[in-house]
Amino acid sequence: MPVLCKPVVAVPENIVTLDDTLDLAKRLHADHPKLKLALRLIRNTGVLKRHTILPIEETLKHPGLEQRNLTYERHAKMRVPPVVEQALKNAQLRPSDIDVIIFVSCTGFMMPSLSAWLINTMGFRHDTRQIPIAQLGCAAGGAAINRAHDFCSAHAGSNALIVSCEFCSMCYQPTDHDIGSLLSDGLFGDAVAAAVVRGHGGTGMSLERNGSYLIPHTEDWISYAVKETGFHFQLDKRVPTTMEPLAPVLRDLVADHGWDASNLGFYIIHAGGPRILDDLCRFLDVKPHAFRHSRTTLTEFGNIASAVVLDALRRLFDEGGAREAERGIIAGFGPGITAEMAVGTWAEGAAGGTEAPTAKATFLGS
Amino acid sequence: MPVLCKPVVAVPENIVTLDDTLDLAKRLHADHPKLKLALRLIRNTGVLKRHTILPIEETLKHPGLEQRNLTYERHAKMRVPPVVEQALKNAQLRPSDIDVIIFVSCTGFMMPSLSAWLINTMGFRHDTRQIPIAQLGCAAGGAAINRAHDFCSAHAGSNALIVSCEFCSMCYQPTDHDIGSLLSDGLFGDAVAAAVVRGHGGTGMSLERNGSYLIPHTEDWISYAVKETGFHFQLDKRVPTTMEPLAPVLRDLVADHGWDASNLGFYIIHAGGPRILDDLCRFLDVKPHAFRHSRTTLTEFGNIASAVVLDALRRLFDEGGAREAERGIIAGFGPGITAEMAVGTWAEGAAGGTEAPTAKATFLGS
Repeated sequence: MPVLCKPVVAVPENIVTLDDTLDLAKRLHADHPKLKLALRLIRNTGVLKRHTILPIEETLKHPGLEQRNLTYERHAKMRVPPVVEQALKNAQLRPSDIDVIIFVSCTGFMMPSLSAWLINTMGFRHDTRQIPIAQLGCAAGGAAINRAHDFCSAHAGSNALIVSCEFCSMCYQPTDHDIGSLLSDGLFGDAVAAAVVRGHGGTGMSLERNGSYLIPHTEDWISYAVKETGFHFQLDKRVPTTMEPLAPVLRDLVADHGWDASNLGFYIIHAGGPRILDDLCRFLDVKPHAFRHSRTTLTEFGNIASAVVLDALRRLFDEGGAREAERGIIAGFGPGITAEMAVGTWAEGAAGGTEAPTAKATFLGS
Repeated sequence: MPVLCKPVVAVPENIVTLDDTLDLAKRLHADHPKLKLALRLIRNTGVLKRHTILPIEETLKHPGLEQRNLTYERHAKMRVPPVVEQALKNAQLRPSDIDVIIFVSCTGFMMPSLSAWLINTMGFRHDTRQIPIAQLGCAAGGAAINRAHDFCSAHAGSNALIVSCEFCSMCYQPTDHDIGSLLSDGLFGDAVAAAVVRGHGGTGMSLERNGSYLIPHTEDWISYAVKETGFHFQLDKRVPTTMEPLAPVLRDLVADHGWDASNLGFYIIHAGGPRILDDLCRFLDVKPHAFRHSRTTLTEFGNIASAVVLDALRRLFDEGGAREAERGIIAGFGPGITAEMAVGTWAEGAAGGTEAPTAKATFLGS
């Protein structure tokens, strides 16, 4: 079975605290008729701080889509390589061992994808496959894990590199004043994450089954409006209610594997917002402690889109990982509304010393 | 082995002939210092006509990115479903038989991807996986075939639907006057294509091996500049020379399969331009007749991006297909510069009556 090894996550150096966010909301939207509601919603997210690639005052200015996207590209090229390097070390692989790069990012657009640049600059083989995915939003982290699983199943012995590059601050739109936008302004953060799925060996989550689910007729609940100013994130107030239809889907997928979703050893869940975590916890009948890694990601980094599940998994590793053969689930949620789910067990490395080495670096997950 | 069944292609009703294109170039760029060169390059493409979703006079006006993208979405929702319906009929499958939708398009951007809308409106199962790919450009047709192959290998007995939606006219940029842009203005056309990869049974190309290759350090040869006005296609004059490094890659992939690339029964090649076809023909040492389907696609529709390989394959089917067990290759080329290649044999349907039915519809490939 392919094994999802320890992810690496890097957050940028600029920090926006909850107080900064609340002060900004009050300053920028002093006359907003629903300011109080917006402030309450932002406080309720539980996000205590976020990180952004630019200082806050620069983030608030929209220099036009062309400049924004160039900033995205410049920071992607600066911030992704060290994270990828460490993810390879965590999996004890070299760039030449990688057979496919799955690059997910919904907060900027490059063609060719950054995967081409990574191959050219980081020593990957030129026959490395590229799977760039931009349109699954926050669900793309789970989708990347599942497509890596599929690829390693289709090509025995191959290895996949997953890269998530989410600079959500590059989608800040100063002209959007609806409640969904104000809430989003206080929810999302920037991060880069990477992880390797090894075809054989490695310590981490052994990927055994995957599945996807689209909640019927919710396409416009999470979406982008594409405008001259770039991607405008549109968030419907019904999104926090989506765990009610999704919980049975998770239950069924886990049951198909012969397991009970209420009784797993680890849960790596997309932290879209606090209600999503609260509700899913309740519907799956598990203790809030089970979702601690997702909750800490939300508190410390905000919603970092497709990078959330990789960061929550990184925190599980940092805690010492799970016990050998312990059962777990990963679930990412995003536009569609789409859920991408992976079911598997903890694997403590194969025979032959493939356990992750102790590395020295400043990155989270190293 | 998964089998790529007969594709369906639909081109819009508005036609732009070579004479129309030359007249327009003369009218719009009368003072261009390199007009003669541009006219010669456009004539040399061999593109006799193209189809566009809007009448030419409307296409020439740029109403802003937001309007453009809304037009893209409206026409995608109008033009994709009948093509998908026919592709399913060609494969003798119902929507509920499909396990993954691979949606490729580089000429507009929607989040969620059109795949979510297709699932909601066309009766696909809600657990159908979605793989939307936007950043592989013209190579995405080959990539979609290869990812469908991988998916069906990883999930035994599953079926994949490939959809390519390319409205290249929605990337026309009236302010771009460099030679590469003028040439592109005369080269690209609009089309929608779909095809099913059946996990078992079906008539078509049995997919046996796939590969990808990125030509080192050619990222900026084919690329998008992302601006307030949308995607600006940037074409380097060195692109037509890329078959020299790619021909040996195709040779090696075919040789890895134990075959000789000069001696295959069918060749489905991306018709990026005439020189690409001429050169590859020469480097692979095959007769021009072998590339007839790609050439006809180019002549009749222009370069329809990721839909080219599906249309060329459709023409092979229309001709009666290949002989049982005949060997062939599909190769798509696009930004990166990336080649996506598939190697396989012709399969005349499995036992049990899975041969494609004769259907009556106005779509090409029905």
